[in-house]
Amino acid sequence: MLGLMQNQPLLISMLLDFAERHHGDAEIVSRRVEGDIHRYTYKDLAARAKQVANALDALGLQGGDRVASLAWNGYRHMELYFGVPGSGRVLHTLNPRLHPDQMVWIINHAEDKVVCFDMTFLPLVQATHAKCPTVKTWVALCDADKLPADSGIPGLQSYEAWIGAQKADYAWPQFDENTAAAMCYTSGTTGNPKGALYSHRSVVLHAYGGALPDAMGISARDAILPVVPMFHVNAWGLPYVAALTGAKVVYPGPAMDGKSIYELMEAEKVTFAAGVPTIWQMLLTHMQSNGLKFSSLNRTVIGGSACPPAMIDTFRDEFGVDVLHAWGMTETSPLGTVGTLKNKHLKLPKEQQLAIRLKQGRAVFGVDMKIVGDDGKDQPWDGKAYGDLLVRGPWIMDTYFKGQCPLIKDEQGRGWFPTGDVATIDADGFMQITDRSKDVIKSGGEWISSIDIENVAMAHPAVAMAACIGMPHPKWDERPIVAVVKKPGADVTREDLLKFYEGKIAKWQIPDDVVFVEAIPLGATGKMLKTKLREDLKGYKLPGL
Amino acid sequence: MLGLMQNQPLLISMLLDFAERHHGDAEIVSRRVEGDIHRYTYKDLAARAKQVANALDALGLQGGDRVASLAWNGYRHMELYFGVPGSGRVLHTLNPRLHPDQMVWIINHAEDKVVCFDMTFLPLVQATHAKCPTVKTWVALCDADKLPADSGIPGLQSYEAWIGAQKADYAWPQFDENTAAAMCYTSGTTGNPKGALYSHRSVVLHAYGGALPDAMGISARDAILPVVPMFHVNAWGLPYVAALTGAKVVYPGPAMDGKSIYELMEAEKVTFAAGVPTIWQMLLTHMQSNGLKFSSLNRTVIGGSACPPAMIDTFRDEFGVDVLHAWGMTETSPLGTVGTLKNKHLKLPKEQQLAIRLKQGRAVFGVDMKIVGDDGKDQPWDGKAYGDLLVRGPWIMDTYFKGQCPLIKDEQGRGWFPTGDVATIDADGFMQITDRSKDVIKSGGEWISSIDIENVAMAHPAVAMAACIGMPHPKWDERPIVAVVKKPGADVTREDLLKFYEGKIAKWQIPDDVVFVEAIPLGATGKMLKTKLREDLKGYKLPGL
Repeated sequence: MLGLMQNQPLLISMLLDFAERHHGDAEIVSRRVEGDIHRYTYKDLAARAKQVANALDALGLQGGDRVASLAWNGYRHMELYFGVPGSGRVLHTLNPRLHPDQMVWIINHAEDKVVCFDMTFLPLVQATHAKCPTVKTWVALCDADKLPADSGIPGLQSYEAWIGAQKADYAWPQFDENTAAAMCYTSGTTGNPKGALYSHRSVVLHAYGGALPDAMGISARDAILPVVPMFHVNAWGLPYVAALTGAKVVYPGPAMDGKSIYELMEAEKVTFAAGVPTIWQMLLTHMQSNGLKFSSLNRTVIGGSACPPAMIDTFRDEFGVDVLHAWGMTETSPLGTVGTLKNKHLKLPKEQQLAIRLKQGRAVFGVDMKIVGDDGKDQPWDGKAYGDLLVRGPWIMDTYFKGQCPLIKDEQGRGWFPTGDVATIDADGFMQITDRSKDVIKSGGEWISSIDIENVAMAHPAVAMAACIGMPHPKWDERPIVAVVKKPGADVTREDLLKFYEGKIAKWQIPDDVVFVEAIPLGATGKMLKTKLREDLKGYKLPGL
Repeated sequence: MLGLMQNQPLLISMLLDFAERHHGDAEIVSRRVEGDIHRYTYKDLAARAKQVANALDALGLQGGDRVASLAWNGYRHMELYFGVPGSGRVLHTLNPRLHPDQMVWIINHAEDKVVCFDMTFLPLVQATHAKCPTVKTWVALCDADKLPADSGIPGLQSYEAWIGAQKADYAWPQFDENTAAAMCYTSGTTGNPKGALYSHRSVVLHAYGGALPDAMGISARDAILPVVPMFHVNAWGLPYVAALTGAKVVYPGPAMDGKSIYELMEAEKVTFAAGVPTIWQMLLTHMQSNGLKFSSLNRTVIGGSACPPAMIDTFRDEFGVDVLHAWGMTETSPLGTVGTLKNKHLKLPKEQQLAIRLKQGRAVFGVDMKIVGDDGKDQPWDGKAYGDLLVRGPWIMDTYFKGQCPLIKDEQGRGWFPTGDVATIDADGFMQITDRSKDVIKSGGEWISSIDIENVAMAHPAVAMAACIGMPHPKWDERPIVAVVKKPGADVTREDLLKFYEGKIAKWQIPDDVVFVEAIPLGATGKMLKTKLREDLKGYKLPGL
């Protein structure tokens, strides 16, 4: 028997309609690429998103066609966030930090029909457009008079002229909520990038989840600053969370330095900000050097990589800002876990609270997770045992665009996405990443975290960088060794370093060897390329073998 | 093109699984009908809900079969909230305050197969069970040794024996999220009661909406006390919101007096409570007479009827508790609007904030609303114009069980549910109920709120009760008159009272006549029965006609 409730699909246009109707005068403030501050309202956003929809109709784009953006965080980008999927097309956010060849590969793989780009990226587009045969329309996100006389890009038009020619009147179509809405490619360290294709349903449910008090806790009383780029997994869903709540939104544009961010926060009375630790470090440094305080910011969500404990303390003790760790990935929309405390934690001493805050957090409703061992069996949630982290839920990916379904079926036939992370989960459901699956060393049935090994080496005063990898061993399957780059002028011997490990980790976890190298190979995003390191060490044999 | 996200239905079992896995040790505390305090955890709840599911399987109940509850707020009732729909059946919450004949009518209309009742209601069941032929199984929510030797109810068994015989192991089935999950009948003042049939999808989406910071703002840091009965529209969804967030839940059982509620709040460190104004008045009176304060409560949601301004002030000024108005109905699951302030309101003086708080609030994302005039056209959102309030959204009803679809289609073909309320909406989206549609007086194309007319009369020192109704008028269609019950010993003339209106409302809104009556007819729930009043005044003619 079916329930007799209204059959209303969860569509991105429903988010925009809600914001327009119920929060029409709430503000969206952007620092533009041009440098000035632009401000308007959700009502204006809705009108211009409808112009975008009409402009796409005028191009003859079909439902499901991909429209790419190559842009900073700002109001025009937000218009694409709603106008493109609202009208049934798919917004493909391109990451301008990728190598141009990789970007071209992605545009061709996605078969983008339109690319809208900030003027910052004009040289990039000039260098690559000819290699993108599927793209019929290039749009520069600027006023008509900012367009260069001869860009060399056939038919290039300005966004303002393009949408300015259209009516601000548009009836958002109603369709299946499982329709594709947005896509984002992973920048994997191996192989070609892979595309995650979000649906309207997954975006709307993710926005509900993200706004919850146990996640980012966003309301109409907030002014939110997404420093996380809109080309990184939909800026963690914040533009959609904003529309769901009617929160004021403040976009930093390309100006990510400490001074610019601080001034924007103060001028617009930002209460909530989200970003990666490097940005916050620049901000804190600027504030500390100038004796500044926040007048409105009260919390920040940090993701992308782990936040140093000292930064969490500084934010709280010096600036009265609560720091929340969050974890997610392109394939998880991205919110998987957020480190909001439970009632039972509120009375713990500060040090114990910090230990919990340093973990990646607990699942947001909509996400379930588990850790499994080599045999695929569940590992206990005791904060010690670790295993491969698997997740499932309505905003977790099933299958890559034009690609494989990586899900692992459980006994009930339910698919779980293998995150590629190794983690522990404690009895309260707080997850902590301990390693990447491909980096963990499996020795005698036990797992050794390469990160743990690296952290100890990095604590030695003579070590500049350390990378731990597993080497084949006839008895133990694998044993860890650590490759070390010495600090300039410093010295340390193999024996010194191995001795340095004693008492810091269990005896059987101490690496079998230290290999001194000139450099550790790094990828484009600064991550260590352990596959390359393995190649460099081809022919290496463990001591005694 | 479809998005490639996991296809996971939104099911009530997903809420329970989440609470069990991620908040297994969070507490559920109940004052039992037996008078003592019972406490256990979500892990225990999940185990016993699975026993309920197995017990229903053992009875041979099919998917969609109705299982009724007749019970106070407590852990056993919560087990039914999850075990019944989780296993594919429909939980039908019966209102024990209805007239027994009406309850029998509802049980027969719903074709309930099982009825689970608190021992409080044993006499009611003894008096009615023989008239309920569809009910094959009667279950008393108690221990086996509490069952009377001869209840007169064939096959009556205790809940503890019934589920105690079952395993706590059960794989929740996966099915279409539009499957019926729960039902609740309206207690309409005219005609037979009508059943709203909620789906798993509507329940889960409503739980997301209810937990939002702009709605009830529930998190794992809360201890919530649903004083609103679990037989009133799923206790405003709070048992489901609780599972979604892992909040501690505290149930009052049948003990609703001020002392019992206060003691429970303090003992269990309740942070959030929800209920109707009458309960809170008893609580405040108890606290004021005994010089008591709250140590943990920080906010309360009040619905069901409007909260007197003085109560909002008292809660805030004397007790530091924030009061939120909410509006909804059986057909809206029930959350439609909540009166959380927007950022722009935070700096207003207290009096202006109070004026906003006195409204019914603004739409929770998932609900859209509009007000329309007699011509079906939208009325402006200026806080003055009023019209019939219509709502739509995925947790708003489409069609009554075995009944009609009352939706009104708009130009885009979208259905809107007519609430039967007349309301204004201001520019910030705050809705205020001004009357019931059937009570509003339509005079010369303008609408006059019967409630406004009654409020003025009630402010006169000699008036005990007042009811305003419209009377036919050849020129103006209708003109208002007010029926008045005088206070014992007090006196007032028709002319005095009509003069009393001057300057308080517009001249054309002043009633044409005052009729003094012995009593205003009231319905079972204490609401004025204006239809009956009209019958009583049959033959009445307006002055001058």
